[in-house]
Amino acid sequence: MPDNEFELIARYFAGGKVSRTDVILGIGDDGAVLQIPSQHELVVSMDTLVAGIHFLHESDPESIGYKALAVNLSDLAAMGAEPVWATLSLTIPEANHDWLQGFSRGFFTLANRFNVQLVGGDTCRGPLAITVQLHGFVNTGEYLRRDTARPGDLIYVTGELGDAGLAMLIKKRKLAVAQQDYEYLSGRLDRPTPRVTEGRNLTGIARSAIDISDGLIADLRHILDASRVGAILYIDRIPVSAVFASCKDFVGPDLAWVDLAAAFGDDYELCFTIDARDRDKLRERLSDIRYTCVGEITSSTGLRCLLENGKEHMPESAGYNHFGGQ
Amino acid sequence: MPDNEFELIARYFAGGKVSRTDVILGIGDDGAVLQIPSQHELVVSMDTLVAGIHFLHESDPESIGYKALAVNLSDLAAMGAEPVWATLSLTIPEANHDWLQGFSRGFFTLANRFNVQLVGGDTCRGPLAITVQLHGFVNTGEYLRRDTARPGDLIYVTGELGDAGLAMLIKKRKLAVAQQDYEYLSGRLDRPTPRVTEGRNLTGIARSAIDISDGLIADLRHILDASRVGAILYIDRIPVSAVFASCKDFVGPDLAWVDLAAAFGDDYELCFTIDARDRDKLRERLSDIRYTCVGEITSSTGLRCLLENGKEHMPESAGYNHFGGQ
Repeated sequence: MPDNEFELIARYFAGGKVSRTDVILGIGDDGAVLQIPSQHELVVSMDTLVAGIHFLHESDPESIGYKALAVNLSDLAAMGAEPVWATLSLTIPEANHDWLQGFSRGFFTLANRFNVQLVGGDTCRGPLAITVQLHGFVNTGEYLRRDTARPGDLIYVTGELGDAGLAMLIKKRKLAVAQQDYEYLSGRLDRPTPRVTEGRNLTGIARSAIDISDGLIADLRHILDASRVGAILYIDRIPVSAVFASCKDFVGPDLAWVDLAAAFGDDYELCFTIDARDRDKLRERLSDIRYTCVGEITSSTGLRCLLENGKEHMPESAGYNHFGGQ
Repeated sequence: MPDNEFELIARYFAGGKVSRTDVILGIGDDGAVLQIPSQHELVVSMDTLVAGIHFLHESDPESIGYKALAVNLSDLAAMGAEPVWATLSLTIPEANHDWLQGFSRGFFTLANRFNVQLVGGDTCRGPLAITVQLHGFVNTGEYLRRDTARPGDLIYVTGELGDAGLAMLIKKRKLAVAQQDYEYLSGRLDRPTPRVTEGRNLTGIARSAIDISDGLIADLRHILDASRVGAILYIDRIPVSAVFASCKDFVGPDLAWVDLAAAFGDDYELCFTIDARDRDKLRERLSDIRYTCVGEITSSTGLRCLLENGKEHMPESAGYNHFGGQ
């Protein structure tokens, strides 16, 4: 067991496998020294996970380490950036070897996969919480933003929504689903694959983008508010996984599954808009993954959610909010 | 009272007065987009303050906001960097208007003074803690580091040490000192002036540098360990303020004052080393402030603390450590 924070950093965090040539000075000084290539801009994103709020106290430390980086990778994906360096602030009640080893394994699994180097941070004692800042590059001017959607744009989502919400529901209500379905769903909750490659492929074609962490409804609203436009969302076109579809009845009667897929969040897919004329181009850019058109941007503000049968249906809970409002 | 985190950010954090042209996209998207001038490197530093560990729960929020940025400014000062952008993760138990207003006032007081723009971050509910990452520039290759001290170097400190420790002692023991002395000392504890200008002036002359946040002894040891050298520290040459000197008797008998000044920390001065031949140059570089030669680097490792009378004296408690060791 390390008896001080410097040993702790050396043992669990200084040995990442990624060693980038643009890191001039990494962990171990008052600050890290980093090089940005010319003709590039820096994109930064910072997210905090607090025990009891973003994850259960008893959560598997490997998942916590993984997710602390994943949520930031997802933010950078939504900016169209290539992730390069991370800093980590880790506040822990005690220096528990098993916990730290698990956490660090989860964190570096994902860091190694995306060639992200941990370059600095802070460790201290206190209530369990993790803050990660991720740094990425874009070619100058070639980043995605949320305030640039235009009327007539088509609205898309990558992948499938609702799996994370369903996993949480199963955990909370202790529902009896097949083991292999449960594993698929918890994997989607605990170890989401951030859409980094897809985000980068969307630069120059997506007119606006955001990651779906608060739920599609809430995050699409951010695009609408920032762009001063409205949208029609074809709510039952929201794509779900085969496992989700087979478990629909667990969620509740009628449209409960739509509400979960549209509003729960934690999916870390991307929502983006494109000029309707760019549909063919989009097919080339996202040839490897499922993506679905779920609506269109309107000049009249406000969000209308329509079912295929033409009726309106607004999902009940629209996005997690830390300070009580909707 | 704001009822959601987006309103909270808009009300307390999006209105900073600094508006830098190198910030392409600031608060409000999935990430900030930032421009680094050519021929420059990026320096980043991240520090977390946790209630009950780094400050008392009942501390004045303005001081907390100020200090959350100050500790990072001090790190960048020790790197010789010009601070430019900050990100802030704020975890609070509840959205209390007075607290947030005070915190934000403290934070922006210092941000405005150093032309630092807040470009992003995160807010969430949980046990009170603040993480700030600060970003700065150096000319390519012109940064200060801690692993480059050489035998024969002279060791210096800026300003005066021990005021923060004395302030804490007075608070804890409720000692009766003159009101104006108490105000001076608490100001040094709660609102330290980071040595940003001095750090920049030391580039190209200091052979190694570190900020004194853990106490001179502990931080000098970091230089020694990283540089694989040793030092002699003339322990009673450590400079103290007139107020500190007048309150010496409160600290304890004999050399208790030395222990406090050398080991308590929280002073946010710089400790640095120079080639002995650069003494005159140093005088030009630091013409505006007090700075003091307190020792020299030796090729034999280990730290020896000597009094003017030639006797050895190692201060008792050498630096705060979060996980129990010395």
